[in-house]
Amino acid sequence: MMKTEIIAEPGKQELFIHREFDAPGELVYKAFSDPNILLQFFAPKGINMQFLLKEYEEGKAYRYRHTDREGNTLCTFKGVVHEMSAPNRIVITSELEELPIPGRAILEIYEFIELSGSRTKLTIQDICRSVDDRDAMVKSGMGDGLISIFKNLDELLKAEI
Amino acid sequence: MMKTEIIAEPGKQELFIHREFDAPGELVYKAFSDPNILLQFFAPKGINMQFLLKEYEEGKAYRYRHTDREGNTLCTFKGVVHEMSAPNRIVITSELEELPIPGRAILEIYEFIELSGSRTKLTIQDICRSVDDRDAMVKSGMGDGLISIFKNLDELLKAEI
Repeated sequence: MMKTEIIAEPGKQELFIHREFDAPGELVYKAFSDPNILLQFFAPKGINMQFLLKEYEEGKAYRYRHTDREGNTLCTFKGVVHEMSAPNRIVITSELEELPIPGRAILEIYEFIELSGSRTKLTIQDICRSVDDRDAMVKSGMGDGLISIFKNLDELLKAEI
Repeated sequence: MMKTEIIAEPGKQELFIHREFDAPGELVYKAFSDPNILLQFFAPKGINMQFLLKEYEEGKAYRYRHTDREGNTLCTFKGVVHEMSAPNRIVITSELEELPIPGRAILEIYEFIELSGSRTKLTIQDICRSVDDRDAMVKSGMGDGLISIFKNLDELLKAEI
């Protein structure tokens, strides 16, 4: 199984997430940029996802929600898409609406690098407004969530090939 | 004259700009959120500004250009508006298109705090993808540009009152 690596250096307001996928770059890029595919994997196991705005495109706003099996809201993310450059890069803002203080958006950059053997390395850089914001994000359990999400994508990519 | 303070701590990927204006918060917020007013002050003296996209609104993409007296392009900025919450906060992404490497967007937060005596304090937080990006921005002469831009706004606010 591929390893998810999360690097959060002490005192920095950013973190990096590294993950390899056993699929070509264009396919991995497509998974992270097409809302219909995102719906199939971008929530930890047992959690449902829905887009509250139809669009996930460069220059537009997006909004999605994670709910539990009973339909209760777990978290809602909103943001705008600064850049979608297939097959290399996605740049978005992201803000968790359930945070007690509004205005704590992050800048999030997805970069896709094709490796030999039709594999792809994804690096996500999350940049926060403060070290405290970054530390709170790490402590929130985002790591476990991402590990589950990436595993979903492994299965989806395997089924597609 | 009001002082423009730029704080760029060594080794950080962010910087803060502080500036007071002798006008109420709603007026200062309006100046920074209405593209028709921005056109009147958001370029250093002697430089023209034009919006290449009509919109400057939450959830939408914006793009503007600075040109010299002969019409030559000096710089073009593009981004998306994550939040416009009158009269307190504007959150945008911003990317200088003339940079040699694409994908170096910044997250920019404008916060407006009303002070006694109908004055307003603006704080801009610029967050970059790296310390190098931040340092290059500081060295590019952004400080002098902003001092000139804020002086333009002082004059505009004086004329309006």
